[in-house]
Amino acid sequence: MELIDGKKISSQIKEEIAQEVEKIKENEGKIPHLAAIIVGHDGASETYVGHKEKACLQVGFNSTVVRFENDIAEDTLLRKVDELNKNTDIDGIIVQLPLPKHISEQKIIESIDPRKDVDGFHPINIGRMVIGLPSYVSATPAGIVELIKRYNIETSGKDVVVIGRSNIVGKPISILLSQKSEYGNATVTLTHSRTKNLKEIVSRADIVIVAMGQAEFLTADMVKEGAVIIDVGITRVKSDKTKSGWKLLGDVKFDEVSKKASYITPVPGGVGPMTIVSLLQNTLKSAKGEIYAKI
Amino acid sequence: MELIDGKKISSQIKEEIAQEVEKIKENEGKIPHLAAIIVGHDGASETYVGHKEKACLQVGFNSTVVRFENDIAEDTLLRKVDELNKNTDIDGIIVQLPLPKHISEQKIIESIDPRKDVDGFHPINIGRMVIGLPSYVSATPAGIVELIKRYNIETSGKDVVVIGRSNIVGKPISILLSQKSEYGNATVTLTHSRTKNLKEIVSRADIVIVAMGQAEFLTADMVKEGAVIIDVGITRVKSDKTKSGWKLLGDVKFDEVSKKASYITPVPGGVGPMTIVSLLQNTLKSAKGEIYAKI
Repeated sequence: MELIDGKKISSQIKEEIAQEVEKIKENEGKIPHLAAIIVGHDGASETYVGHKEKACLQVGFNSTVVRFENDIAEDTLLRKVDELNKNTDIDGIIVQLPLPKHISEQKIIESIDPRKDVDGFHPINIGRMVIGLPSYVSATPAGIVELIKRYNIETSGKDVVVIGRSNIVGKPISILLSQKSEYGNATVTLTHSRTKNLKEIVSRADIVIVAMGQAEFLTADMVKEGAVIIDVGITRVKSDKTKSGWKLLGDVKFDEVSKKASYITPVPGGVGPMTIVSLLQNTLKSAKGEIYAKI
Repeated sequence: MELIDGKKISSQIKEEIAQEVEKIKENEGKIPHLAAIIVGHDGASETYVGHKEKACLQVGFNSTVVRFENDIAEDTLLRKVDELNKNTDIDGIIVQLPLPKHISEQKIIESIDPRKDVDGFHPINIGRMVIGLPSYVSATPAGIVELIKRYNIETSGKDVVVIGRSNIVGKPISILLSQKSEYGNATVTLTHSRTKNLKEIVSRADIVIVAMGQAEFLTADMVKEGAVIIDVGITRVKSDKTKSGWKLLGDVKFDEVSKKASYITPVPGGVGPMTIVSLLQNTLKSAKGEIYAKI
């Protein structure tokens, strides 16, 4: 069994990005600039935006954080997005979700210029991804593909089972892996809460991607010997063995499944650390005009 | 075995649409208006556009056909699309493909206002479909879903195998059938040229959707007793039994597979006649402002 070390890979990629930014600076090129909007004071949102800001600074990007109170009007937020859309120094715009209930998240997402939509949530980027055109792919599926690449895991002709059909993980990763591409060409089955014979289906898979948010759901009896296991779940549970009184669990019962797997991602330290890296990669691509022509 | 009679269902739906248009006329409402652009004189394109025009007139829609010669400049075509985008009487715009090589099809598709994109080819409509928002679904997948509805075929929890991963059939139908919706909730496996154990995978399916374009590929030994078979393929082959010297074949070896199937679409007369109906339905939805707010 080989551990897929997302922490190590993400540090490595950050280092690669930092080197590229160094070269950009030497050549007096455009330094990538990410703008994040945060509304209110939700603890988790603050943490995420903090991590993203820190990661930008680590690799030498410019970073702007725009803060609004919870009672901000939707119009004001839309105007801010429009201002960032028009600001030619900004390469990427993200709006930390969730937003307060009086604001339509979808409306805000669709107001971001698709060329700066480095979260890859705009329908136009999702649609372009589906038909195989250059697009910003959202953080988690992009991070999974990156791990598969870096560990040289063969996907062509393999049977992949994805558990969970969310818009941000299950659906996009199932599309990406089935596509005609170097890290695609897999035969993908997308399973979900209505799937009847899940255990049987999963037991046939060469690669299992679990994104349900149900702690330790996937057990050893469900998986084939030698399968590749990608665990996207992350659930916080009480623990009397940690200082904090909490620990993080994935969707996979790691201790037992790791004994049968050929490759497996741990939680934490697997897919998680890759998501910020995907965001940095998308922002760099935007600054370089790799997805869309430079604005 | 019950035959899924696309010809009958499509006539029925056209009749329903015609009745609705009658009511719209009585109430002096907006009569749906479809504009089709055709470039050059390709025989097949002429036929398709002719059928679409005829169908519009049958149900009482207004229809405009714009013709250009093969040597039209891309800019001229873009200007025409823009003019139709701005024309508030036009509810739907389609550009008959293929276009001459000097014109970028993708550029033309993306120039159509997504609110008038009744072919459902614009990335924004594909993306909205993927995340479950109201959108125009393209003709073939929409037609398949309509047949499933009209024949009350249960999809929830069923194992569906789609053969062929094209942008206009395989990918969208696999997404639609796996979605949380009344005619979705299936466990879908998307197979393609790189799939290794196709026969084994297909043999487990409750519903098989074949969209490969390979005449009589699917044989009786591949399918489960009682499976539902949807045949999207259509290939013209020489025949000494028809007056024309040609006959049309689907991707399914109909004679033998029909003996094992619970439901099966014939070729011709199955999915084919449904595609024009989907286009009419999308144009009607546009005129009524059902997908997007009225322009």
